Amino acid sequence: MASESELIAALSAIFSSAPSAGEVVGIGDDGAVVSASGLQVLCADMAVEGVHFNRKWSSLYEIGGKITAANLADVYAMGGEPEHLLVSAGLTSDFGVAEVEELAQGIRDEASLCGAYVVGGDLSSSKELVIAISVVGSIKEGKKPIRRSCAKVGDHIYISGLPGLSALGLELIKDGCESGYPIAVKQHKKPILDYSKAQSLVGKNISSLIDTSDGLYTDAGHIAEASHAGMVLDADLIKKIPGFDELENNASELEIEVWDLVFGGGEDHRFLCTSPDDLSALGFYRIGDVVKGSEVTVKGASPTKKGWSHRFKNS
Amino acid sequence: MASESELIAALSAIFSSAPSAGEVVGIGDDGAVVSASGLQVLCADMAVEGVHFNRKWSSLYEIGGKITAANLADVYAMGGEPEHLLVSAGLTSDFGVAEVEELAQGIRDEASLCGAYVVGGDLSSSKELVIAISVVGSIKEGKKPIRRSCAKVGDHIYISGLPGLSALGLELIKDGCESGYPIAVKQHKKPILDYSKAQSLVGKNISSLIDTSDGLYTDAGHIAEASHAGMVLDADLIKKIPGFDELENNASELEIEVWDLVFGGGEDHRFLCTSPDDLSALGFYRIGDVVKGSEVTVKGASPTKKGWSHRFKNS
Repeated sequence: MASESELIAALSAIFSSAPSAGEVVGIGDDGAVVSASGLQVLCADMAVEGVHFNRKWSSLYEIGGKITAANLADVYAMGGEPEHLLVSAGLTSDFGVAEVEELAQGIRDEASLCGAYVVGGDLSSSKELVIAISVVGSIKEGKKPIRRSCAKVGDHIYISGLPGLSALGLELIKDGCESGYPIAVKQHKKPILDYSKAQSLVGKNISSLIDTSDGLYTDAGHIAEASHAGMVLDADLIKKIPGFDELENNASELEIEVWDLVFGGGEDHRFLCTSPDDLSALGFYRIGDVVKGSEVTVKGASPTKKGWSHRFKNS
Repeated sequence: MASESELIAALSAIFSSAPSAGEVVGIGDDGAVVSASGLQVLCADMAVEGVHFNRKWSSLYEIGGKITAANLADVYAMGGEPEHLLVSAGLTSDFGVAEVEELAQGIRDEASLCGAYVVGGDLSSSKELVIAISVVGSIKEGKKPIRRSCAKVGDHIYISGLPGLSALGLELIKDGCESGYPIAVKQHKKPILDYSKAQSLVGKNISSLIDTSDGLYTDAGHIAEASHAGMVLDADLIKKIPGFDELENNASELEIEVWDLVFGGGEDHRFLCTSPDDLSALGFYRIGDVVKGSEVTVKGASPTKKGWSHRFKNS
């Protein structure tokens, strides 16, 4: 059996390879100490085996990266830059040093794509693998957080890339056809995020911003609700996003409605935003408009699956 | 079934009752935004049902408070002041709005003892209840973090209160004698922490500081290891801490060695520190001295249980 202190030593080695400039105290004390100034973004995500990931078809390296990506996306979705991560994990009895290292390397490598570093965390034993990450980021001096709540009637709706790939990937895995469309399978196991596109929004005239973790329809609904506005999502505009045809072909081979993937598929973590300006030069695709009202309306398609929400006991 | 959005609405109501001065964006967006300056302390804790708490004998309110206390203690143990909490929870299928509210109230009430507030988090479904909290605190302007690593030969060792009560409480619960010593039972279910004593150390000549989450012997060992020094813990000095006689009497009634409780019992979160100065005016009790060497030595007692560590698969 590996002891907690052996695991912490292994983790320190992995996470200390690239210390952050602002780090004063790192792993190995009661807490980390970093220097900060101005507005800080605080985001938390928890991922549970069987709910958010499956070890049958994802490596621990991919799982670490995937959960980290979800968390980093949240910081960017506030207009911030991720800096420091705290990682807590409940580890099942089959976890040894090698497994912890693989998971940690996945976390570290994804964080390093954003120049962010793990500075601390906690380990526990548990019956199912559970990973909780908190990220502390900062908002550049003089800039403001970008909220969900300021979309204005007349704004255009933009997205950083095609949603639905991760959901297609999951279907391919379930059907045992991983070779059918490797990009989608990859996107499900460990999505590639448009971090630099999100970064490019800072300082621009952006009225709302969110990442599509729950699915385009649901996340557009979050903006609509917070902004007290309606959102019209236009299927004809979405068809113009690169990769749509391939998504559609693969969906039809699996006899899946492509619009269910596009509107209902989560975990792509595309950046969805609204602006009165033209954002095409930043690599964003216009997919609709903000209108009067309070609902999300889909024009030109009729998806039946519209996103993901945990459900708990009523009381 | 309660939906995630219903739970978040319930949680927003509980956690928004006392917004923090520095809070710019609270619960309900991709992340929270707070203002900060100077040195920030980042601490994470994960607690898993059956490992860190047991719903058979603790209420959800107590569990929420207990886990929060463990986390807040870590911030104080770095010389910081807790400010903002992120709370993630994996909830079992029996959780509804009422259960989530009770847990949240326990978290909120403990945090408010320190003037700290929950600003965000995440919810998931899970097979066992798991709670992960991250706290961001700050170190007062002009002050330094207090680490584990600077204990000096000749320093005295101090503790903020008697350790072992929580461990005794657990034994009483297991034996079905909760009425035997209610203070200890309470200390196990939801410890009362010496937050103000920890606060009083800031700006004083403190060479190392830790909280006794794993037990006095183990945590003194953490200071010894980080400081490259030996620690002599003196049983005769510990006997002088108020409450020792009652602890001893109750231990002997249960036929438990009192020194196993004192040295091996964790979760009291007493503040253990070293200093060349006399800290008795701050309510700290001297229990030993820092000496040359690298080990923890117990003088005047022979405990057999020496603390707590998770063990994981060796690989």
